[in-house]
Amino acid sequence: MNKLVFKFGDSISDGDRSMKAHLGGKGANLAEMCSIGLPVPPGFTISTDSCKFYSEHQGQWPEGLEDQVRDGIAHVAAQMGAGFGDSSNPLLVSVRSGAAVSMPGMMDTVLNLGLNDAAVEGLAAKTGNPRFAYDAYRRFIDMFGDVVMGVHHEYFEEAIEGLKKERGVQSDVDLTGDDLKVLVDRYKAIFKKHAGFEFPSDPFEQLRLSVNAVFGSWDGDRAKKYRTINKISGLIGTAVNVQAMVYGNMGSDSGTGVLFTRNPSTGENKLYGEFLVNAQGEDVVAGIRTPEDISQMASEFPEAYERLVKVTQTLERHYRNMQDIEFTVQEGNLFILQTRNGKRTGAAAVKIAVDLVEEEMVTIEAAVRDLVEPGHLDQLLHPRFEDVTAYSKDVIAKGLPASPGAAVGQVVFSAEHAEESHAAGKKVILVRIETSPEDVGGMDAAQGILTSRGGMTSHAAVVARGWGKPCVAGCSEVVINYAAKTFTNGKVTVKEGDWVSLNGSTGEVILGAQALIDPELTGEFAKFMSWVDQFRVMGVRTNADTPADSHKAIEFGAEGIGLCRTEHMFFEGERIDRVREMILSKDKDSRVKALAKLLPFQKDDFTGIFEAMAGKPVTVRLLDPPLHEFLPHSKEDMQDMADKMGVSLSEVQAKVEALSEFNPMLGHRGCRLGITYPEITEMQTRAIIEAAVELTQKGVKVFPEIMVPLIGTVEEFAHQKAIIKKTAEQVFSEKGARVEYLIGTMIEIPRAALTAEKIAKEAEFFSFGTNDLTQMTFGYSRDDAGTFLPEYVDKKILADDPFQSLDIEGVGQLVRFGTEGGRRGRPGLKVGICGEHGGDPRSVHFCSEVGMDYVSCSPFRVPIARLAAAQANLAKK
Amino acid sequence: MNKLVFKFGDSISDGDRSMKAHLGGKGANLAEMCSIGLPVPPGFTISTDSCKFYSEHQGQWPEGLEDQVRDGIAHVAAQMGAGFGDSSNPLLVSVRSGAAVSMPGMMDTVLNLGLNDAAVEGLAAKTGNPRFAYDAYRRFIDMFGDVVMGVHHEYFEEAIEGLKKERGVQSDVDLTGDDLKVLVDRYKAIFKKHAGFEFPSDPFEQLRLSVNAVFGSWDGDRAKKYRTINKISGLIGTAVNVQAMVYGNMGSDSGTGVLFTRNPSTGENKLYGEFLVNAQGEDVVAGIRTPEDISQMASEFPEAYERLVKVTQTLERHYRNMQDIEFTVQEGNLFILQTRNGKRTGAAAVKIAVDLVEEEMVTIEAAVRDLVEPGHLDQLLHPRFEDVTAYSKDVIAKGLPASPGAAVGQVVFSAEHAEESHAAGKKVILVRIETSPEDVGGMDAAQGILTSRGGMTSHAAVVARGWGKPCVAGCSEVVINYAAKTFTNGKVTVKEGDWVSLNGSTGEVILGAQALIDPELTGEFAKFMSWVDQFRVMGVRTNADTPADSHKAIEFGAEGIGLCRTEHMFFEGERIDRVREMILSKDKDSRVKALAKLLPFQKDDFTGIFEAMAGKPVTVRLLDPPLHEFLPHSKEDMQDMADKMGVSLSEVQAKVEALSEFNPMLGHRGCRLGITYPEITEMQTRAIIEAAVELTQKGVKVFPEIMVPLIGTVEEFAHQKAIIKKTAEQVFSEKGARVEYLIGTMIEIPRAALTAEKIAKEAEFFSFGTNDLTQMTFGYSRDDAGTFLPEYVDKKILADDPFQSLDIEGVGQLVRFGTEGGRRGRPGLKVGICGEHGGDPRSVHFCSEVGMDYVSCSPFRVPIARLAAAQANLAKK
Repeated sequence: MNKLVFKFGDSISDGDRSMKAHLGGKGANLAEMCSIGLPVPPGFTISTDSCKFYSEHQGQWPEGLEDQVRDGIAHVAAQMGAGFGDSSNPLLVSVRSGAAVSMPGMMDTVLNLGLNDAAVEGLAAKTGNPRFAYDAYRRFIDMFGDVVMGVHHEYFEEAIEGLKKERGVQSDVDLTGDDLKVLVDRYKAIFKKHAGFEFPSDPFEQLRLSVNAVFGSWDGDRAKKYRTINKISGLIGTAVNVQAMVYGNMGSDSGTGVLFTRNPSTGENKLYGEFLVNAQGEDVVAGIRTPEDISQMASEFPEAYERLVKVTQTLERHYRNMQDIEFTVQEGNLFILQTRNGKRTGAAAVKIAVDLVEEEMVTIEAAVRDLVEPGHLDQLLHPRFEDVTAYSKDVIAKGLPASPGAAVGQVVFSAEHAEESHAAGKKVILVRIETSPEDVGGMDAAQGILTSRGGMTSHAAVVARGWGKPCVAGCSEVVINYAAKTFTNGKVTVKEGDWVSLNGSTGEVILGAQALIDPELTGEFAKFMSWVDQFRVMGVRTNADTPADSHKAIEFGAEGIGLCRTEHMFFEGERIDRVREMILSKDKDSRVKALAKLLPFQKDDFTGIFEAMAGKPVTVRLLDPPLHEFLPHSKEDMQDMADKMGVSLSEVQAKVEALSEFNPMLGHRGCRLGITYPEITEMQTRAIIEAAVELTQKGVKVFPEIMVPLIGTVEEFAHQKAIIKKTAEQVFSEKGARVEYLIGTMIEIPRAALTAEKIAKEAEFFSFGTNDLTQMTFGYSRDDAGTFLPEYVDKKILADDPFQSLDIEGVGQLVRFGTEGGRRGRPGLKVGICGEHGGDPRSVHFCSEVGMDYVSCSPFRVPIARLAAAQANLAKK
Repeated sequence: MNKLVFKFGDSISDGDRSMKAHLGGKGANLAEMCSIGLPVPPGFTISTDSCKFYSEHQGQWPEGLEDQVRDGIAHVAAQMGAGFGDSSNPLLVSVRSGAAVSMPGMMDTVLNLGLNDAAVEGLAAKTGNPRFAYDAYRRFIDMFGDVVMGVHHEYFEEAIEGLKKERGVQSDVDLTGDDLKVLVDRYKAIFKKHAGFEFPSDPFEQLRLSVNAVFGSWDGDRAKKYRTINKISGLIGTAVNVQAMVYGNMGSDSGTGVLFTRNPSTGENKLYGEFLVNAQGEDVVAGIRTPEDISQMASEFPEAYERLVKVTQTLERHYRNMQDIEFTVQEGNLFILQTRNGKRTGAAAVKIAVDLVEEEMVTIEAAVRDLVEPGHLDQLLHPRFEDVTAYSKDVIAKGLPASPGAAVGQVVFSAEHAEESHAAGKKVILVRIETSPEDVGGMDAAQGILTSRGGMTSHAAVVARGWGKPCVAGCSEVVINYAAKTFTNGKVTVKEGDWVSLNGSTGEVILGAQALIDPELTGEFAKFMSWVDQFRVMGVRTNADTPADSHKAIEFGAEGIGLCRTEHMFFEGERIDRVREMILSKDKDSRVKALAKLLPFQKDDFTGIFEAMAGKPVTVRLLDPPLHEFLPHSKEDMQDMADKMGVSLSEVQAKVEALSEFNPMLGHRGCRLGITYPEITEMQTRAIIEAAVELTQKGVKVFPEIMVPLIGTVEEFAHQKAIIKKTAEQVFSEKGARVEYLIGTMIEIPRAALTAEKIAKEAEFFSFGTNDLTQMTFGYSRDDAGTFLPEYVDKKILADDPFQSLDIEGVGQLVRFGTEGGRRGRPGLKVGICGEHGGDPRSVHFCSEVGMDYVSCSPFRVPIARLAAAQANLAKK
């Protein structure tokens, strides 16, 4: 018989941390913690295989599961000296989900399971506290009803509010044990009314239904959405952890808390967490009561605190990573309920990685491989406020600094609205009293999140930190009115659509759109990145069109420019007029004259960029967009252009009309322009080569790589190469000096990838333009795909937006084919990527796998690509 | 030493007909004719290898060529008993080009080579005819100057016109021998002035320059253009044939002619050709003098004619094909100058093929393989005039019926203008006094050609027949005025842009755009096509959207429908309003309601088509175009729509705006619509399945194949398949009956071809949509590519327009990959093609090679595809 249930507890542990796939993260860690002697309440884990079976068999349990679960309960009962449903010493358990990857708030949990009319009396007798027993009972009915049977929590809330009114009391704690006994009856009636059957008194039946609810939640919309947003795939289901209850709400000598072994925002090596006296763990996580700082525990529970500190050290050393721990103190005794690697901000990740190396807890290699995710660096590189003192008069409230960073956006009050506005291209700040798992879509869409309730470990705070998204939580100074779509601090009222700024590092809420600037990087960042480069083989270049971008990219470690788009240079100031003059030219001669006027501008551009790159290779792409992109669209602008050019409006209109295209993406652009107007290629080549030769003559090292865009056939490339070579030779002979340079091509058309071998016989390098390659391989227009792509991701027709993460299955085949073909045609061919995927860690991994020489991405993604490239290389080992 | 020169003549023949690649068609046939004992003037052929060497070595001759040419001249001189430059019996030769594939009029020819001031006296003495000698001499200088040195023919024309004026005579023949002697001096002066050096008197120097001119003409623009238009590639160069001159202009017992062994227009088994007494061969081909019918020769040259008839029979039997023969009678003696397989019309090709089988000259297999080209059938299937009697009052002139068929278009007077107008989408008739090789581009662009001068074998006639393009030649009733851009029969004047019609089968020129109808097919056609099907393995289906198309296609032998486009059905009458109602729907419910109104229309469509196809498979493609294609574009039309729909104009405008796309080709279309609006897929499936079930219940056999368009991922397909299956099952249970049907997909997105194996696990058939696949693989928009594609073909960047002939190198890889992948995923998967390439012979060949089950094309191309498929299969043997 398959082993489906894994027991743990004092002196017994069927599993260990290597078994995450089957036991889930929580279950594996509970087993591991038991095996290293930590005080963990006994329990057992139902493996993920059972969940898979359940999904695939319309809610049936696999054979043997029931027997094994009963055996597990017997084990827990024996360890606790209690009995399931026992009227003198009842065994109460929690039922929690736990998949291989942590998904906070996504899965449903049931506590106090095992209570019934007999057991509650046993609990009352045993604890000598009938109020506690009935409070546990009514909480159980509420939670069981809500989570397991879908009887909405509000019905139970109404009942307790009604009873409080009847009793004339304000707070739940003012209700007596007898009141709660009455409440239990009312709760059972509510349960029956909405669930359609009596509240089940058999603890094993309670357990069966609860396990099913956990299994079922795996396929719930919220869980699926979370997995989609977080790109979690390949899991077979969730495990279920059944564990003896311990109580933090057994009086003032009890309590519950969560902590990180180091500060998850900054990385500081100091316990960071919260503690609530006389409370259940769910109270902390849900952010319903505002808890005390963990350090308070030292004075309130000195013995337990001392033990807790030792446990945290043991766990950190054991897992060689910062831990996120849940614990409970029951009548002075410490129980560890859960440990896992703690989520952290980018800054914290880097600091912790550096500290753990310096504390000799991990090797440099392990730090680079395991302790910082490429996405973490993204947070570090996000903008912050230009001047945090300048906006002080505009600060209208201060909440908890729940997730660092600066965010600016227009206020919205619902997750749905946040998603819509984001889709419409707006930047928004999501403002909620508190957030719940239903809100994750909107949180993802927002620049930042503001909540008026909940602590540093509330839902909003945990999720936002995980994403590196700025969050101000528990900002009780503001009152939010969903109906009026406003929030106010009593003096200033902010309406939907108003601009606000959030400082997630200080907790400040600021009126207006405050100016943001680029981040500086810490010494730890530099140290960590130097380690990264020890393990990196693949090069990292940047996409940069200006000297400023080039300087920034070098700061971030770029080893060259992989894509310099010359057309961006065509829009500035006077240049656009010269471009338009060229477009209006009626013949080659006048076109050549107009181009001659553009030449000095282009040459200046290249001179600046080559100087900035100081001998590092610079790949310059020749003109790519269709010419109509340089023409005005409104009649007014056309009139302006006509006036400037000294031609009639109708002539401009005719040209705009003549150049307009049905599908510009597939139109007269890229090398197709260079072929019909060779003089454009000549001018651009001249600008590049003249700049290069003149700098070389001044002693500046220059290494230009001229890249022909949109090649589909080797004949196109050969045509353009001949023009480039001829022009370069002319310049060399005019200047009496030569420079080394390469002529290569973008591979961005499927046909180019398919005929790469032939093209490589002519081309001296390849650079995959995966943006266009993705458009053509999928037949998607980036401009239009918004009408169906989000739905495709939602409906799981696509695992990811292929413009964000390279579609390895389809587009990846062409990339692989093109790389291999290219290297057959020209052994040792230099191959890179310059689409936006060059900065996406998963895509970088793939590029490493196919053996590219470099990836190229925007300057701010260069460190991310460096880390991803190093990790890809380490993964090959 | 390489053999570069191949001699032929009485009792000697270095080559044979198998050596076309090296000797060219003309040279190989001259050798072959000598070897079978025909009277051929002696000569030699310089191989194509020499031309290749010449091209590649800046006009140098390969080593040994000069010696071998001198040896060749010695051989000819010996056979003729004459000497090169001899003043008593001079050897005169012709120099002609001849590549492996015939290119009429494309290459330059020099006649009478060997004449100089001494030789001319020898010729005069030998023939006793100084006038003849000096006429030959002045013609030689003219031709040598024009063809070899680029001294324009007009300069010589001016000189002869001037002399005629001086002498007060009208015609060339009125000039005396002495006059011509004066003319020779003037010609030499003209030559020297324009060529820059003395006319070369050394015959060997004359020969060297002439051979170089032939070599050079291979790379001339005209030859290249002809090769491009005719898709001729893979040749290394032209051969040069140097052959003793024989004279058809040695008096009234001499003459020259060209003939086809059977009628090249109709196929009738009767000599067909022309003959000119006392003339050189070039006079016939150039169409300068209007010749007599070949049958006249029987009375004028009975002996030579009798011998000629025997020669034609020998040649036809030898080559097992209809021959195109050039001959000369010199003083009563017959010489065969050239034979080759004759170009013919489609009707002639079919009749000749059938006749040669019935005459037991060829086998059925050889007839199918060799005697009819798929393109020939295209001509047969071209439209003809609806009523040839109805337009009689509009006939304004009658010329020679040079190439059969009916053409309607607007008059243009230059080839250039014809090309421009064609590019602008106009149908034009090219009207020229006579055509020359410079005009081929314009002739190709025109619907039909009208010339006022030249015979049935004039340039215009030969080229037009080769293309199956209607041509009326030598229509001397009309006077053409290029300057005024008119032509007139003296009563009616037709201006540029006026509509005319040509009947190439009768020679009639008709005013106005006469109505055309579809052709009927002859009994020979049916017989030939039945033979074709004996050798065909691959199926041929049709693309048809209506019952009428379906019936037509079945007549032409279609074995099913490979593509039935449902959206075409959406535009008719009331339907478009229902479609628009559906598009305006604000929610699923109202969309479902609007679709329900469309259902009966769609069901009727399918019922009609299924009935027409009577059990043959019918592949129905679900809705493909983006929804905005169904919306109006002008404000007036939007207002109309708003009125009809009972909504505001602004609502319609907003919808048009919302649905507009930057790149509709890559937008929200195909299965992407079916995924966002599953109700569309449901309605279409219901219409198909209800029609099928109801017909089945009536005893009509039906076999629908439902095809999901624009699939890029297997998930898309699975999504749509589930909807189709569910809907079909619903219909089956409602109707209490089932039908067999398949669910498959178009492969038209590169990613689909790349992931074909996975897709085939779900899809029950594949049909390659090579139109869209070509667009995406090349990154070309068919709507926009006109701005550069013609230039690409001109500049040889592309060998062909990839939308006309499948790009085997690039797109073909995806087709092959997709086919093989699909069959790995689902062994025996049915694979077809439904792009326009399905009717292109070369593409059909490729489809056969990759092992497709069928091709599908427009009804009129079905016979072409059948023949191409049979020939592809025979080629595999």
